[in-house]
Amino acid sequence: MRHQVCIIGGGPSGLLLSLLLRRAGVDAVVLERRSRDYVLSRIRAGVLEQGLCDMLREAGIGSRMQAEGFVHDGTIITAHGTTVHIDFKKLTGKTVTIYGQTEVTRDLYEELDRIGAPVFHEAEDVAIHDADSDAPHVTFTHQGRSHRVDCDFIAGCDGFHGVSRNTIPKAVRREFENVYPFGWLGILAHTPPVADELVYSGHERGFALCSMRNANLSRHYLQVPLTGKAEDWSDDAFWAELRRRLPPHLAETLVTGPSIEKSIAPLRSFISEPMSWGRIYLAGDAAHIVPPTGAKGLNLAASDIHYLSKALIAHYAGDEGLLAAYSATALARVWKASRFSWSLTRMLHHFPAEGSFLARMQAAEVDYLAHSTAAQTALAENYVGLPY
Amino acid sequence: MRHQVCIIGGGPSGLLLSLLLRRAGVDAVVLERRSRDYVLSRIRAGVLEQGLCDMLREAGIGSRMQAEGFVHDGTIITAHGTTVHIDFKKLTGKTVTIYGQTEVTRDLYEELDRIGAPVFHEAEDVAIHDADSDAPHVTFTHQGRSHRVDCDFIAGCDGFHGVSRNTIPKAVRREFENVYPFGWLGILAHTPPVADELVYSGHERGFALCSMRNANLSRHYLQVPLTGKAEDWSDDAFWAELRRRLPPHLAETLVTGPSIEKSIAPLRSFISEPMSWGRIYLAGDAAHIVPPTGAKGLNLAASDIHYLSKALIAHYAGDEGLLAAYSATALARVWKASRFSWSLTRMLHHFPAEGSFLARMQAAEVDYLAHSTAAQTALAENYVGLPY
Repeated sequence: MRHQVCIIGGGPSGLLLSLLLRRAGVDAVVLERRSRDYVLSRIRAGVLEQGLCDMLREAGIGSRMQAEGFVHDGTIITAHGTTVHIDFKKLTGKTVTIYGQTEVTRDLYEELDRIGAPVFHEAEDVAIHDADSDAPHVTFTHQGRSHRVDCDFIAGCDGFHGVSRNTIPKAVRREFENVYPFGWLGILAHTPPVADELVYSGHERGFALCSMRNANLSRHYLQVPLTGKAEDWSDDAFWAELRRRLPPHLAETLVTGPSIEKSIAPLRSFISEPMSWGRIYLAGDAAHIVPPTGAKGLNLAASDIHYLSKALIAHYAGDEGLLAAYSATALARVWKASRFSWSLTRMLHHFPAEGSFLARMQAAEVDYLAHSTAAQTALAENYVGLPY
Repeated sequence: MRHQVCIIGGGPSGLLLSLLLRRAGVDAVVLERRSRDYVLSRIRAGVLEQGLCDMLREAGIGSRMQAEGFVHDGTIITAHGTTVHIDFKKLTGKTVTIYGQTEVTRDLYEELDRIGAPVFHEAEDVAIHDADSDAPHVTFTHQGRSHRVDCDFIAGCDGFHGVSRNTIPKAVRREFENVYPFGWLGILAHTPPVADELVYSGHERGFALCSMRNANLSRHYLQVPLTGKAEDWSDDAFWAELRRRLPPHLAETLVTGPSIEKSIAPLRSFISEPMSWGRIYLAGDAAHIVPPTGAKGLNLAASDIHYLSKALIAHYAGDEGLLAAYSATALARVWKASRFSWSLTRMLHHFPAEGSFLARMQAAEVDYLAHSTAAQTALAENYVGLPY
């Protein structure tokens, strides 16, 4: 088969790219390794920057998000006895929307189905060929049959473990990585949220985050050592530890209940440069991973897709400039969002090996934040998303 | 002899405290271990926050600073190919003044001489007694004779190596420290400054700072390993390395000349809590050290003296509240200024052990700074000095 763009990876990045290209008359196929049910069962982030919401609306799939999502005008940061309300709307004029990544994915599938855009699920043995030539192609196996996609471009939206990044020769790539000495234990529970907004809590026992999906579905996290397992944590132990890490007025109102999911994820910062090589263009986790603090993962993938869709559309309109600049353009925003995720992680987590000096620097940073409109604005403008 | 306040240490903190107390009718004596000539020969910082300038003016010794100091409306931060002008005046309405600490000290000596305030130089064997009683006293030797000062309060303005801090029992104190894996090699030269404002330069070879005292006296620094010695650096080697670490437009205009002073200083963050115990009140380097990045050392001593002078004057007016709160009040600002000095040091220096990820975070921070008014304002408001 022949398509103008072969998109590897059917998560939100790949699907959104496919839709945006279609809307502009560019033909793309999506190859996804997993089943649709599997993709829709993954629990992922749920804080959308205004830029991503605007993209979804412009792509014509914003109506359910508009109806079911929750607009948050701010967030709460509390640490070492100081609680700061960061008022995004007042400080930046922008907001974020609570709407699960899974829901975005579902909306994308439905729209792509409706318009008949091709998405192959359970595409196995995906391999990229001749990416550095003018005539690349991709081979894969689907339901026992071998397929070949001839295309102009390959979009690598296949995540950290996908094949796309590793198709770029090691001699061309440069990788940057920072591993954090802890993980996040997350639970999902049918309980009301702790507050109307997300609560980021720095504590000497470790970081905690109280997040939510809707009025009766909470998503909470605890910083935990990487040596333990999620099964080691009873629901009671989780709630007791979360309560300890919250300021009294929030600990008192915490409503507990049985968890419906519980897992530990490591934290990592990772960036691979460049984000393009030959006819391959990487987007999202295929090129970069951020720690979840600050909720930048999906949003950064979305900004990559913003730049990449515009660049590919421009190419078919005869303008090569954006495509040539894609890697540099995307990376400038990637590095800044990575810096924000890293610095928010550094500000709020307990780093056991770094001793009491760092803990006091963290406390001083939160105290400064509480008293400085400039510092609050800097945090807010990063949180709602730097401009594309 | 009897004085209401015995001030240990005749650097700018102790002298300023003595003057401010005198102006309010509180009687103080200053004991300084070194000779006046020695104190006036020490080369120290030269960037005064507006708050310190205001204090000097209010104390009636601002006229020479006003005439000879240079008001700087901003500073230049350049790193990894990005140059940012931080416009203090536009962003915060405040400025800083270039006027050597030595000159401040000279002005203080002259005014204290004029009003006949007692300052003992070369006071040896200073010892603090009964500081936790209502009747403390201080003994010292001066020109071969033993003296005793009975007093109500002892102000420890005697620096990091002074006796005051160590009079507070170890069981009461808590120390926080961070040592940086490099030093600053500084030179003084009769050359014109590189620019109208200070230039902070982050570079993969290490940090550089181009500072100044006046139109024909420059003070420059290079980040260097602590393993070397100042004598290892010829003037030519210094200038060549400085030129390498500056962006081309500044490297080109760099005027070199023979150095008149050259030395290496280590960088350290240190805070001792509490800043008071019994009748002892610490101020400045006796309680805290900051790395020189951001020029907070003298300014932080000045804010301590602001709080301490007001507290002692209030005590003699019958109000104990400020004195009881002194340690907490001063420390709140100390921690924030320490955080700023630490974070500016982290942003601009090369940390050899931390690898390329940190270097890219630094570059991203400077890139973000270049594009964010909020981030520039946060840096500026710290640089010109957080409010007392």
